[in-house]
Amino acid sequence: MNMNDAGTARLLVTCPDKPGIISAVSTFLYNHGANITDFDQHSSDAQGGTFFLRLEFQTPALDCSREALERNFASRVAEPYGMQWRISYANDKKRMAILVSRHDHVLMDLLWRTSRGDLPAVIPMVISNHDDLRGEVERFGIDYHHIPVNADNKDDAEAQALALLEDQVDVIVLARYMQILSPAFVARHPHRIINIHHSFLPAFVGANPYQQAYDRGVKLIGATSHYVTEDLDQGPIIEQNVQRVSHRHSAAELKSLGQDVERQVMLRAVRCHLEDRVIVDGNKTVVFVK
Amino acid sequence: MNMNDAGTARLLVTCPDKPGIISAVSTFLYNHGANITDFDQHSSDAQGGTFFLRLEFQTPALDCSREALERNFASRVAEPYGMQWRISYANDKKRMAILVSRHDHVLMDLLWRTSRGDLPAVIPMVISNHDDLRGEVERFGIDYHHIPVNADNKDDAEAQALALLEDQVDVIVLARYMQILSPAFVARHPHRIINIHHSFLPAFVGANPYQQAYDRGVKLIGATSHYVTEDLDQGPIIEQNVQRVSHRHSAAELKSLGQDVERQVMLRAVRCHLEDRVIVDGNKTVVFVK
Amino acid sequence: MNMNDAGTARLLVTCPDKPGIISAVSTFLYNHGANITDFDQHSSDAQGGTFFLRLEFQTPALDCSREALERNFASRVAEPYGMQWRISYANDKKRMAILVSRHDHVLMDLLWRTSRGDLPAVIPMVISNHDDLRGEVERFGIDYHHIPVNADNKDDAEAQALALLEDQVDVIVLARYMQILSPAFVARHPHRIINIHHSFLPAFVGANPYQQAYDRGVKLIGATSHYVTEDLDQGPIIEQNVQRVSHRHSAAELKSLGQDVERQVMLRAVRCHLEDRVIVDGNKTVVFVK
Amino acid sequence: MNMNDAGTARLLVTCPDKPGIISAVSTFLYNHGANITDFDQHSSDAQGGTFFLRLEFQTPALDCSREALERNFASRVAEPYGMQWRISYANDKKRMAILVSRHDHVLMDLLWRTSRGDLPAVIPMVISNHDDLRGEVERFGIDYHHIPVNADNKDDAEAQALALLEDQVDVIVLARYMQILSPAFVARHPHRIINIHHSFLPAFVGANPYQQAYDRGVKLIGATSHYVTEDLDQGPIIEQNVQRVSHRHSAAELKSLGQDVERQVMLRAVRCHLEDRVIVDGNKTVVFVK
Repeated sequence: MNMNDAGTARLLVTCPDKPGIISAVSTFLYNHGANITDFDQHSSDAQGGTFFLRLEFQTPALDCSREALERNFASRVAEPYGMQWRISYANDKKRMAILVSRHDHVLMDLLWRTSRGDLPAVIPMVISNHDDLRGEVERFGIDYHHIPVNADNKDDAEAQALALLEDQVDVIVLARYMQILSPAFVARHPHRIINIHHSFLPAFVGANPYQQAYDRGVKLIGATSHYVTEDLDQGPIIEQNVQRVSHRHSAAELKSLGQDVERQVMLRAVRCHLEDRVIVDGNKTVVFVK
Repeated sequence: MNMNDAGTARLLVTCPDKPGIISAVSTFLYNHGANITDFDQHSSDAQGGTFFLRLEFQTPALDCSREALERNFASRVAEPYGMQWRISYANDKKRMAILVSRHDHVLMDLLWRTSRGDLPAVIPMVISNHDDLRGEVERFGIDYHHIPVNADNKDDAEAQALALLEDQVDVIVLARYMQILSPAFVARHPHRIINIHHSFLPAFVGANPYQQAYDRGVKLIGATSHYVTEDLDQGPIIEQNVQRVSHRHSAAELKSLGQDVERQVMLRAVRCHLEDRVIVDGNKTVVFVK
Repeated sequence: MNMNDAGTARLLVTCPDKPGIISAVSTFLYNHGANITDFDQHSSDAQGGTFFLRLEFQTPALDCSREALERNFASRVAEPYGMQWRISYANDKKRMAILVSRHDHVLMDLLWRTSRGDLPAVIPMVISNHDDLRGEVERFGIDYHHIPVNADNKDDAEAQALALLEDQVDVIVLARYMQILSPAFVARHPHRIINIHHSFLPAFVGANPYQQAYDRGVKLIGATSHYVTEDLDQGPIIEQNVQRVSHRHSAAELKSLGQDVERQVMLRAVRCHLEDRVIVDGNKTVVFVK
Repeated sequence: MNMNDAGTARLLVTCPDKPGIISAVSTFLYNHGANITDFDQHSSDAQGGTFFLRLEFQTPALDCSREALERNFASRVAEPYGMQWRISYANDKKRMAILVSRHDHVLMDLLWRTSRGDLPAVIPMVISNHDDLRGEVERFGIDYHHIPVNADNKDDAEAQALALLEDQVDVIVLARYMQILSPAFVARHPHRIINIHHSFLPAFVGANPYQQAYDRGVKLIGATSHYVTEDLDQGPIIEQNVQRVSHRHSAAELKSLGQDVERQVMLRAVRCHLEDRVIVDGNKTVVFVK
């Protein structure tokens, strides 16, 4: 599929499953001149399950404005079926803020790919508790905000960050941000904060997972990308991957190898989020992969 | 999804893409009491492409017989849109014949998995140009037909096999069958013969691919499962996979390692075919993987 | 490498690292007419580390008997360097007992591969706490011992098993044996009992790891093969692997997919053990992979 | 292994196999105060094969200069056994020139990793037949030479490049350089030019392999890194890898996904070369992986 994104819209739906939903959704779109070009649906159970849907439709022949389409969909389809839903447009790139501390490997990959159009996003700002990476970020023409964090100013620092982010971003990526966000911060951006954890969760929670992996003698190391929730390292997993290692690798080498896995996993998770492929289902995710 | 297969049906559709198809299909099913529980659709192009669909629906609340449903679908939906389509029922296990020569590794895996219910098929017969594997096959209570093939009797041998297969099978698996089937044989079972080739096609066509791979010094060996067409090794690819190798492996060891890849690839391809996940699109396949 | 195993011997060495060890070992073998054809050595640290060695040598031109060679090696090389060591011969297949409960997927793969010469072992017996798999095992001409285990006879059952195994086996494979072995049992066979655990340890220890994985929403499931020690699920890991899964898979399907990973991981671990590729290093392993 | 590279040297050896080589090499090193900390050896055949060796030794306690060590090794060990050999020192980073056209994905990864110390190399120059990437390269403080190539000046352009490279580089990386090098150019740098080909060779040689892969409907796309020889796309393969794709990916998307595989494969191949892990064996390679 090599479609022009210009006219592509995406609809995500979650609701209690019952007969007739697909008919209602697709007939509504057809009647408004939308052509569905990709449709992926899943029911969690044949009886009394949850209905999950992601579809793409082409908008050039729409018979009404986007606003009218969404208003009508809300009243005629979404409300009767009790849907949680959203429509987004491939052309409206999501605004992605990045929070980072000192490790630059995930950050650089996101900056580089976004700048060359490989990731469909705009990056309005990078926020860091250190000033180390300012040069690398500003070179891309992106604002860099240094907000130091210490034991005494944590609440204040978070308030500064929240003020910067307010209404400015659609997604927040923690590209190895080494501060724990407060429940209040997380609550402001539910299912919009993506973290990368440097182990194949739920193994090796807590500090220094590569040293833990080395000490345990595992033959695979991994990384996990997940939405941030109040519970540290416990949020819905979006993507994971692993890399084979051996007795010849020191703990330092596991860390170095693992950073490549972190980049790769974070990239996939962010891409899925930006392309509206992820629906959160309790503490799990439905990911409609390409 | 842990559904009871008892009431699950599958609909596969290919047709020229145009607006309204999903609405027509889903509304038809809804009106007959069918609940769609899995729906996977793809258009090859936003303008003038081909529409591919696989969906699963639950039949317990159908308001008519299967025959009536299919008859109505044909006249009211399939014909107006110019569809190629079929409906199958998870409970109606496909009849799978296996053709084999002397290598038993793919055969045994298929027999073993089918016998324990891991593959949804029944095996009415195994046909071989050798008698070596009779005992292994008959132990599973499956008929074994030995049809020797030599330079002089090839046409006759094929005629015998065709006679045995006629109306008895839904799919024919070549589990390392070392005879080339004639175009006439293939034409009797279009897109119903699955072969396993011991290389990652299109590399190493022809004889002894593992020796070729060894001589070329590749770092990955592979296997390819494809539908058989008139053109040897050129049919639509269903599944492929690879395995890492090194300078420490001899050509004989590549062959041994490769046999595990062959089993794995064949298993996935056969499972996809048995679960109606494959649509042939010219010389390629659309595979709706789980 | 496609060598005749007939004359191949293997030497494994662990000792404190210091200069001169390789010179001493290789010169000793050279002086006795042994040709080294594969040599893999690793030091855990350049200063004060541990020396690990696996080498293969060809014995046809040896100038003395095996017994003399080993006696001389012990006194002239091993003792001065404080080595733990062993020499084994590729032609002397290891005797592998299998303990199993009711799941047959790992057992069948081991039986099938051993019977066709794909695994270099002989299987003197299978022991089970159930009688279900007797037919499958006896068909291969292997003794099947049914030793029921319940809350009251656990010590007695273990004693029976130990008596059967005494001096009869080189390695014991737990092919999904659902009983916990006592420390006394384990102590009788140190680093000779191999278990397969149905998760990527250390994640999901304890009961029903596939359900745990399903509930956590992981995107990869895995399996781990390890030597059994007193501490349940904590022994040195030999091999691990994973398989990608999605929201479309039920807990039951994770279990089914996972069984293929279990077979694959167990096969690799057992093969490494049978080919003398594993050295235990504290609670970790050094695995000299091909 | 977390050794200080400061004192680490590496010895690579190829010669006809015969008994006594390891003894001679290791005893020589021991007698000069070198401690071997990693030793990987392979014989291609037990009878009349080729002997390949890579070992690492620590130099702090050497009893002579590097020059004396190498001189003595040449006369006392290498000559009697007919060895091809070289000793290199981890601290002496190799000088790596990069040739590139317009695609920047492989180039940027090499520049970025080298600049942060992740790849043990220095980059004295980048040469390109286009001027597009000058800014990206010069930002790293690296000389950028623009040598346009057209139908009329090909010989002259190569002469310019050869003059720049002469005595200045240890390895030349073609990071998607879209010009075919002449046999004369290649002959000046035997086994020192590394190319990345955008397919899993030997499949899809020639132009536009991603389009070829799309047209054939393969389920895996790949990339291959190899030494450049006179025969286009035929040189010894160093590393390969693949990525799963589906019917949902257009030819353009295969190309985009493939670029990530190209980067990864090239990185591994270059790293192996820089760490002296590759020995060319005719038209194949022996790669002593970590």
